[in-house]
Amino acid sequence: MNQTAIARSWVEHANGHSDFPLQNLPLGIFSRAGGERRSGVAIGDAILDLEAVLAAGLFEGEARTAVEATRGGALNAFFALGRSARVALRERLLALLGEGSEHQATLKAALYPASECELHVPARIGDYTDFYVGIQHAMNVGKLFRPDNPLLPNYKYVPIGYHGRASTIRPSGTEVRRPKGQTLPAGQSEPSFGPCARLDYELELGIWIGQGNDMGQAIPIGDAAEHIAGFCLLNDWSARDIQAWEYQPLGPFLSKSFISTISPWVVTAEALEPFRCAQPARPNGDPQPLSYLLDTRDQAAGAFDIELEVLLITERMREQNLPAHRLGLSNTLSMYWTVAQLVAHHSVNGCQLQPGDLFGSGTLSGAEPGQYGSLLEITEGGKHPVELASGEVRKFLEDGDEIILRARARRDGVASIGFGECRGKVVAAN
Amino acid sequence: MNQTAIARSWVEHANGHSDFPLQNLPLGIFSRAGGERRSGVAIGDAILDLEAVLAAGLFEGEARTAVEATRGGALNAFFALGRSARVALRERLLALLGEGSEHQATLKAALYPASECELHVPARIGDYTDFYVGIQHAMNVGKLFRPDNPLLPNYKYVPIGYHGRASTIRPSGTEVRRPKGQTLPAGQSEPSFGPCARLDYELELGIWIGQGNDMGQAIPIGDAAEHIAGFCLLNDWSARDIQAWEYQPLGPFLSKSFISTISPWVVTAEALEPFRCAQPARPNGDPQPLSYLLDTRDQAAGAFDIELEVLLITERMREQNLPAHRLGLSNTLSMYWTVAQLVAHHSVNGCQLQPGDLFGSGTLSGAEPGQYGSLLEITEGGKHPVELASGEVRKFLEDGDEIILRARARRDGVASIGFGECRGKVVAAN
Repeated sequence: MNQTAIARSWVEHANGHSDFPLQNLPLGIFSRAGGERRSGVAIGDAILDLEAVLAAGLFEGEARTAVEATRGGALNAFFALGRSARVALRERLLALLGEGSEHQATLKAALYPASECELHVPARIGDYTDFYVGIQHAMNVGKLFRPDNPLLPNYKYVPIGYHGRASTIRPSGTEVRRPKGQTLPAGQSEPSFGPCARLDYELELGIWIGQGNDMGQAIPIGDAAEHIAGFCLLNDWSARDIQAWEYQPLGPFLSKSFISTISPWVVTAEALEPFRCAQPARPNGDPQPLSYLLDTRDQAAGAFDIELEVLLITERMREQNLPAHRLGLSNTLSMYWTVAQLVAHHSVNGCQLQPGDLFGSGTLSGAEPGQYGSLLEITEGGKHPVELASGEVRKFLEDGDEIILRARARRDGVASIGFGECRGKVVAAN
Repeated sequence: MNQTAIARSWVEHANGHSDFPLQNLPLGIFSRAGGERRSGVAIGDAILDLEAVLAAGLFEGEARTAVEATRGGALNAFFALGRSARVALRERLLALLGEGSEHQATLKAALYPASECELHVPARIGDYTDFYVGIQHAMNVGKLFRPDNPLLPNYKYVPIGYHGRASTIRPSGTEVRRPKGQTLPAGQSEPSFGPCARLDYELELGIWIGQGNDMGQAIPIGDAAEHIAGFCLLNDWSARDIQAWEYQPLGPFLSKSFISTISPWVVTAEALEPFRCAQPARPNGDPQPLSYLLDTRDQAAGAFDIELEVLLITERMREQNLPAHRLGLSNTLSMYWTVAQLVAHHSVNGCQLQPGDLFGSGTLSGAEPGQYGSLLEITEGGKHPVELASGEVRKFLEDGDEIILRARARRDGVASIGFGECRGKVVAAN
């Protein structure tokens, strides 16, 4: 392991333990107090204003085309350009922000403290699809309902997914209003209406679609990875009591659509390249993927090794200055299908994907306690409350509780990168 | 019944049996050969170019504001203005297009034969939600799987719905590419991959959302009807074999997302006002709606009496010049919930609705043979083929088959109005 091989930035903060070292360069949409929405890149604890750097004439050729496509307050047109434009921009930013850059003076004028900026959802999301490919989560949840047969017969053949609500996807920091809805109280035959009593989070990887496809034209598995622009964290807030009553026969609806929170930085496929790995071996007896989901390159390097973490801070913990409580530590290796397989499957029927569509992976949990990605799993549906240092217990989330998702990719010999936070604090129902 | 009370248009064709008499005035987005997308209104067999009439100075005040909001190739901004703007535009169009209008010469220059125009999806659809409120359809389908207990326990409390795919909603006339996907052949334990063998249509009412709501703010049932801009026909094409294998536990996905077809004209809430009626009485023993779904005005006049029809033309029927075969004749009275109840339910958890969102009613079938809205019901899942005058039979749709949906509202003493057609022809899988 040769740490000296890791390139450094003249932005000093980027060389520490920041989520955003020179090797990350995630893209996003930000604004400063009262200002317009502009495209930026995160570097250490700062944001580089891409549109200001463009105006200063520091981008040329394909990198310039790429930055021009980031204007207008949304990254859709940039996503549509695909990998080549992303790579050109990345190469130029590595030079501009790397040690020895000759443009430091110009760039410093376009560099703002992130703490003074507001971050927004980075693209207009046409359609949002939530998958269910965290196999340990599917096992853990399945066991609650079918102890002897937790996985349904289609699980190991079909990358299970369903359409979600795009209009209520919000950036980290947006408050989470407790939803109201119908629930069936235990032992009753008629439902009640009122605030959700079993509010939960779900730890997911978000996947941004880059280049789309025409309706009727499936994306072959061998090309599928090229259609992914980047990644984020996603909290698929869930009202378990509403879900249990509404979801038959057509799936979750109002139990999910009140809000979904994402981390606002788009961590590119290129930044995550060093953290790719082989798809975890399927256990003996598991079927081979059908041909439209099978690609040797994807099997060899289509998975990601990214650590995922969920933290909880309650109102009382905040008052007592207690540190956040770690609810779970998980990893993207628990995905049964690769992101390329999700793209190939989603489009195999001719469904049109568009730049700026968002996928969720589904909850990513490990097999062991301490690795679960939802309270439903941790408390076994409310049976075993979590005990907190504040003396409180939690079966599900209470008003004032804040959930923080984080992600970190590590590998010997390369810079570790993070995703930034995906936070949301629960506020009382209206 | 006083037929002479029905106002007439100087556009002669509008005074016959057209779907688009003076009393209808549906809005849409059209283009002429090679031209840009513009807003228009259907009158008889013609389209009035609203933007040309605007340029001619024939709109003032709120009607002018309304037409200005129809520009740009999508009606979203017009939908956002709400009822008052729609009414102002309608009043002005009634005067301009009515007998005795003093502006006929100017208007004739902005009137094009509909046959020379292409019609488009009339708004950018942010989110599409498909409901399941045709109770006879739910009964008919439920009986196939659970003969003794066709409706699930939540059906009469929850307006069942789920998120659909917005990116593949297309206007009438778009070809329907047979989707490929995973299916589980009868008697097998492992799925196969290939073209759908059980392709079906679904007869639905489409509902366009007008004014939206902020996230977290439910729309009260008493206000809900005000949030609806208009209506269309919707064919929710369905791959039954793909659906059966994929839909557990999260609902239909690729079995629906390959295409949904809509009729392109937005029939306004005002045009349908004469065809409103009381919500059909719930059978004895059915529960009262929960309070957030209950409104006396909505119960008294929140339903619609609109006849719905499905026609089939096969390739051979076309060659033999045979008339279309009527597969079903149904009515919107089979909706168990009103459209206002759908809006109130959808937003009760704080979900944000936006102008241009689209709802589907779910398949609308009657209780009797001849009134079914899908082949799944007509053939009982393929058991009893439909016999056609061409000598052909159909269990499900074959390549070359064209499905045509129509709607007609009739009432003594008022002009009957229609929706225009929603057509789609099946073409072979890629």
